[in-house]
Amino acid sequence: MPVSREIHLVRRPEGMPSPKDFALVEASAPDARDGEVLVQNLYMSVDPAMRPRLTAGQALNEAMMGGALGRVAQSRSDAFAVGDLVSNRQGFREYFVSDGKGLTKLNPDPDLPLTVHMHALGMTGFTAYGGLLFIGQLKEGEQVFVSTAAGAVGSVAAQIAKIKDCYVVGSTGAEDKAAWLRGEVGLDAVINYKETPIRQALEEATPKGLDVYFDNVGGDHLEAALRRMNTLGRIPVCGMISGYNSGQSPVRNLSNIIYSRVMLRGFVGTDFMHLYGDFQRDMAAWLKAGRVKYQETVLQGIAEAPAALIGLMEGRNSGKMLVKLAD
Amino acid sequence: MPVSREIHLVRRPEGMPSPKDFALVEASAPDARDGEVLVQNLYMSVDPAMRPRLTAGQALNEAMMGGALGRVAQSRSDAFAVGDLVSNRQGFREYFVSDGKGLTKLNPDPDLPLTVHMHALGMTGFTAYGGLLFIGQLKEGEQVFVSTAAGAVGSVAAQIAKIKDCYVVGSTGAEDKAAWLRGEVGLDAVINYKETPIRQALEEATPKGLDVYFDNVGGDHLEAALRRMNTLGRIPVCGMISGYNSGQSPVRNLSNIIYSRVMLRGFVGTDFMHLYGDFQRDMAAWLKAGRVKYQETVLQGIAEAPAALIGLMEGRNSGKMLVKLAD
Repeated sequence: MPVSREIHLVRRPEGMPSPKDFALVEASAPDARDGEVLVQNLYMSVDPAMRPRLTAGQALNEAMMGGALGRVAQSRSDAFAVGDLVSNRQGFREYFVSDGKGLTKLNPDPDLPLTVHMHALGMTGFTAYGGLLFIGQLKEGEQVFVSTAAGAVGSVAAQIAKIKDCYVVGSTGAEDKAAWLRGEVGLDAVINYKETPIRQALEEATPKGLDVYFDNVGGDHLEAALRRMNTLGRIPVCGMISGYNSGQSPVRNLSNIIYSRVMLRGFVGTDFMHLYGDFQRDMAAWLKAGRVKYQETVLQGIAEAPAALIGLMEGRNSGKMLVKLAD
Repeated sequence: MPVSREIHLVRRPEGMPSPKDFALVEASAPDARDGEVLVQNLYMSVDPAMRPRLTAGQALNEAMMGGALGRVAQSRSDAFAVGDLVSNRQGFREYFVSDGKGLTKLNPDPDLPLTVHMHALGMTGFTAYGGLLFIGQLKEGEQVFVSTAAGAVGSVAAQIAKIKDCYVVGSTGAEDKAAWLRGEVGLDAVINYKETPIRQALEEATPKGLDVYFDNVGGDHLEAALRRMNTLGRIPVCGMISGYNSGQSPVRNLSNIIYSRVMLRGFVGTDFMHLYGDFQRDMAAWLKAGRVKYQETVLQGIAEAPAALIGLMEGRNSGKMLVKLAD
């Protein structure tokens, strides 16, 4: 029986999470019983949406939950063979036993790196795709703003909008990320909100207003966007990271949605699963053609998982933040 | 040439409008020229949405704009005969000349009072109808909250939801209005937010959460509703009167729309004009069957128009606030 190290939440963070909120615990992975498989996780993902669950939802003193990619190490199930790759929600641990529920077999694209299935070609990219095209009803040539545009979701959303011939403004909080968005990605305008106040910068960057704002931030970014929305504009709300650690991010000009008849809609990827096939086909093609670029920050070993989550909140990642757990 | 008295905005109000922001001005109504009509207004409407226009949009030292119902007094147009009733946007004046643009001929229902065409059976009622059924996608049997439920729009929205077999909670700020909603209208729960804080009262009144919140208030009412929204809930935003005079009504828990995947959408009646025929048929039937009840507050004479607008902001109306200008 292998030792499975796992990360527990031992204290609910107040404000920014700290290493003391987490503990590394050693457990023994049990053997698979009839109908079960033992999975070894290879990579796990950390995501901004995990922060609210630390305050409520995630149980204390248990292995935390999160997206991961694993390989079947033992199988007593007809549905899985040893060596199968499986997407799962059992991150933050090295091994786990499953009856197969919640496991999705992955057939990786041989022409793409494996990790891309954990971001641009996985639920991260799908969240951007459906959020922009289905929730946001993006039309070709529109005026678009994406916040945290260098992030895992934001960078995909911004590039899909470019593929759809839109004018695209992205915001980020670091000069190296801004440089990547300007140079490598080629957005029409890039805002470093730590250098220029977002309200002023967005006004200058959007002479034709905004038809779609893909919101990952809330708070001051949403206020700035609400001032620029064109009639019948759409705001797919993917996240509001500005309030995740501070607890409150007031929005004072929400009444603008009346005058411009704007829609805001919160969503998660499972709201548009009927598009998953289209997404996989489109995204694989865009990645291979170099039309969607990405960055990854990969920390090494389960012990780094808390640091990955904290680093993500502090913006210390470039693109998708992953933790590699095994080869 | 008749004398036409009219109301000018002479100063932009700061906070609550005051009588000194307005002036009563005497003008001479010119005669109609070829292709024109002279209209005498009989009733004019005041609406919450007029308040933002006083801050920006409404020109100073000109007759104000607003919904009105008039009668053709002279006609040199083939399209209108003397005596025709016409809905128009030229309120706040006794007479005006028009080339016919912006006039809609009204064929009043002989079985209903004339004034009902200025609220329940007019754009006011249509705003409630389309806001609830089209923007809010109301389904039978859902859990519904309507703010300012004794107001002209709110009372219609609340009663349409009742007709659709929904559980309906209404809020108001006066005990006589609460009594009307409980007794005459028969809502399932009525909140007087001046007696019980809206957050607590709404929590107690919505044991099954909320599927639709028809928002006329914004601010604390919207915050309270966001705490109660069920998954995939909808918030048609008709108005945010809480911020019209105070200038700011911050919403601090907007991130709730992500976890519950809620849609907010600002709208005006012209967003769903394709439903106007359905609305007229349904609403006339409901009014005649006594299934939609209404209240009116009618002030007398053009000089009272500023008082009507200020009184509306202070909640001193019961139901629709009108000013009668002529018989």
